[in-house]
Amino acid sequence: MSRPETAPLDMKSPVHLTDDQRLDWLRLIRSENVGPRTFGSLLRHFGSARAALAALPDLARRGGAARPVRICGREEAAAELAAAARMGVAFVALGEDDYPAQLATIDDAPPLLAVRGKLAVLNQPMVAMVGSRNASAAGVKLAEQLARDLGAAGLVVVSGLARGIDAAAHRASVATGTVAALAGGHDHVYPPEHVPLVEALIANGAAVSEMPFGYEPRGRDFPRRNRLISGLAHGVIVVEAAQKSGSLITGRMALEQNREVFAVPGSPLDPRAAGTNALIKQGAVMVTEAEDVLAVLRPIIGRRGEQAFAEPHMSDGHGPTPPSEPSPDARARILALLGPTPVTIDDLIRLSGASATMVQATLLELELAGRLKRQQGGRVALL
Amino acid sequence: MSRPETAPLDMKSPVHLTDDQRLDWLRLIRSENVGPRTFGSLLRHFGSARAALAALPDLARRGGAARPVRICGREEAAAELAAAARMGVAFVALGEDDYPAQLATIDDAPPLLAVRGKLAVLNQPMVAMVGSRNASAAGVKLAEQLARDLGAAGLVVVSGLARGIDAAAHRASVATGTVAALAGGHDHVYPPEHVPLVEALIANGAAVSEMPFGYEPRGRDFPRRNRLISGLAHGVIVVEAAQKSGSLITGRMALEQNREVFAVPGSPLDPRAAGTNALIKQGAVMVTEAEDVLAVLRPIIGRRGEQAFAEPHMSDGHGPTPPSEPSPDARARILALLGPTPVTIDDLIRLSGASATMVQATLLELELAGRLKRQQGGRVALL
Repeated sequence: MSRPETAPLDMKSPVHLTDDQRLDWLRLIRSENVGPRTFGSLLRHFGSARAALAALPDLARRGGAARPVRICGREEAAAELAAAARMGVAFVALGEDDYPAQLATIDDAPPLLAVRGKLAVLNQPMVAMVGSRNASAAGVKLAEQLARDLGAAGLVVVSGLARGIDAAAHRASVATGTVAALAGGHDHVYPPEHVPLVEALIANGAAVSEMPFGYEPRGRDFPRRNRLISGLAHGVIVVEAAQKSGSLITGRMALEQNREVFAVPGSPLDPRAAGTNALIKQGAVMVTEAEDVLAVLRPIIGRRGEQAFAEPHMSDGHGPTPPSEPSPDARARILALLGPTPVTIDDLIRLSGASATMVQATLLELELAGRLKRQQGGRVALL
Repeated sequence: MSRPETAPLDMKSPVHLTDDQRLDWLRLIRSENVGPRTFGSLLRHFGSARAALAALPDLARRGGAARPVRICGREEAAAELAAAARMGVAFVALGEDDYPAQLATIDDAPPLLAVRGKLAVLNQPMVAMVGSRNASAAGVKLAEQLARDLGAAGLVVVSGLARGIDAAAHRASVATGTVAALAGGHDHVYPPEHVPLVEALIANGAAVSEMPFGYEPRGRDFPRRNRLISGLAHGVIVVEAAQKSGSLITGRMALEQNREVFAVPGSPLDPRAAGTNALIKQGAVMVTEAEDVLAVLRPIIGRRGEQAFAEPHMSDGHGPTPPSEPSPDARARILALLGPTPVTIDDLIRLSGASATMVQATLLELELAGRLKRQQGGRVALL
């Protein structure tokens, strides 16, 4: 039975992948046009990563792919697992006990998270701290002070390992536990000067990545990585941020993920406070000391929402069935309704007259053909 | 007929004092133990300042005054009026057209306001700006910028003529109109170095005072003066303020007066921002530019509440009657209920079993004897 894209398949059963299944998951998420949301659709439709891998070429062809989609081979995936293992990196699957429960609540949670360091830290309550790379001395001092105090209060500090505020936050919480979310593979820490910081923080904390081993991050990878920073945490503190900075994007992302947003104020004459002051005007909680954060997070920590994918060995025999192929007519009607402006799937169902199953199947085909983009709020647009 | 202390006697009839009445008003407010609230009680009870002046010695004696209260003589008041006139100072009475309508809404509005400069400016919409005396360069720059932009938007800027933020706010709005509320008499500008600033600002603005001519301000006079700053304005902007500073007191006063409170944020590491940041946490509107203030004040400006006292020539023959003397028994019961902890008049009426008229009459006597203090919210305490 197919289910709507965003509903968790099974809230109860924890996932425990076999080595073979983990390899299949890695192959599937490393295959062309398969992102976290598509991965979820495929697993819900086909019941297992292996079945989805087998169906991929056909689906992409039906979606109008110009050429066959690239599927990650067994050897390639096995090589990545081996390289990761040599570096002490574990791949944790969404739904497994070690997977960060808070990260599992976002709708584009990575199916596999590559973790280096202490797994246990990922299920402690976390707070994210982000801010300018060209931080002021005052900003660095504040980041350190807040990170130290929040760490002492039992929170793990998440950040992005960037120069400035990020590094200050990590350094001040190395002893109490800090998590660095990487934009590239574990063997491509950016900036390279922070390799020693990563080595230091994995003693009590962790570095996490969803990107392939050997992947060197580019500018466009950072916004995607930022969703992990806010996703891992219960709240995001923006310490210093200019208008239109990456830290503000993380703040906005945090709001979309229903995370608390905190901001440190500054003088209106300080351009590095323009972004944080704007966040406060928009409703972010003003922070001048750790207690401001703790007062908001204490009641929230403990509440958990989780989602997990099921694999066949956990099903009761009434597992999912592959999507029926949409009729050419239905597919054409749905395609005609799509354009570069995002629309909701509900609108597509209503306006096309096709069944929800047909619409989902058509969207999945288009996605795998690299022609569709899924956005926040379950909206889709043609690329 | 006596009326409750805080209700305006007559919202409709504007007041126009004769020269004789203005002299009586000045004598009454300059007499011992007569503050703005007592002045209001007396005028409501006796219908005119002259009748109240005649009743004062008796009332004070009945209230238990240790010695006869000092009553301001005709000559003394006439001398003050003459000295003020030589300096171009006009005495405007609460309820007269020239009296600032916004100031008239506070429950301890001065019955007579001594005004030097342009009377017309007092009924334009005003915004107050206050802040540290030892302001930072950034604070001064911000105060100037805000005052200039708010002035350009048609608001008159009120402040307290102090060094630092106050002076910066006045200077930047000399051209568009600014009002200085003095803590002493017009001939005792404090600090003396700001005499030239007063001379400059009265060209398009005004200096106002409720204190006697010749009165030199002491430290304890400034909090009382601060209520005029917030009282004149629709909102108060605190630009830079340490914790426990006078500017914060003005901010709190503004809240009690139902004025909007605005605060400029600053770095948590800057002690001069500790007070403003705290105000924002408590709900003050964060200000980084004039538009933040204008957005809040635009819808408010124009709404007006006014109060006025009546003088006999305006009454229709059914004027107020002097309070009956409370029975010694009732007076004793009411006195026994009073102590240093403020209580409401309603509680006094309920617990004493005396009539509202008796309670009000007893309180007036105690006030004039210098034994009672009236507080915000209509509460009273023994001194």
